[in-house]
Amino acid sequence: MSVEPVNDPETLAAVEAAFDQYELALTTNDVAVLDTLFWNSTHTLRFGATENLHGYDAIRDFRAQRPGKGLMRTIVSRSVTTFGADFAVANIAFTREGEARIGRQSQTWIRIDGQWRVVAAHVSWMDPS
Amino acid sequence: MSVEPVNDPETLAAVEAAFDQYELALTTNDVAVLDTLFWNSTHTLRFGATENLHGYDAIRDFRAQRPGKGLMRTIVSRSVTTFGADFAVANIAFTREGEARIGRQSQTWIRIDGQWRVVAAHVSWMDPS
Repeated sequence: MSVEPVNDPETLAAVEAAFDQYELALTTNDVAVLDTLFWNSTHTLRFGATENLHGYDAIRDFRAQRPGKGLMRTIVSRSVTTFGADFAVANIAFTREGEARIGRQSQTWIRIDGQWRVVAAHVSWMDPS
Repeated sequence: MSVEPVNDPETLAAVEAAFDQYELALTTNDVAVLDTLFWNSTHTLRFGATENLHGYDAIRDFRAQRPGKGLMRTIVSRSVTTFGADFAVANIAFTREGEARIGRQSQTWIRIDGQWRVVAAHVSWMDPS
């Protein structure tokens, strides 16, 4: 078992596709797809801009009650790195209409039972320096 | 190769120890140790509270010029999860004197050449909801 190769082309393509699927589901508030893309575990964790959620159920409940508007955003930088065949990180910076600050989203993905899932996520707005 | 077992006791203990080493180095601004604990790669990435840093060199340069005061903090929640023998995520929430908001730190760790290293990190202050 190894963390290499880094960015094996086939693995990278699979994670980029999973990331694209997530981004589309997020910006269209497709809650069912978002739920599918998170690891169903008490260990799963999501730090959002205004909330810290521990466990798959807390994340699902948050999504279920979140207003579906105002989620559109523009990605301004994107970095996906894969390690071996089963592990990856995806990081973006983004802007959103009506928000002067730069947003950042970090995700850690694992491949489990053949499916790529997010095990940890962190979304925030960057403070002015 | 697999992401299982999750939280193998020996692997978890090693990552908890690496996390403790990082936390001590951060709060005492031990830049040499912090540099050692990050993966030396152009893929390494750190989103800080006030900056987005891409690549090991940018992170190292940031640390080298950062004032060493005001880094102390109190961890209020901590979650470390390991996958197989070589991958882990570590997430904390924290408070800092003089800052009303809750801080969050997310790290993704890999074991490479026998050493645990951070490949991606994200630090932010949580907005009021």
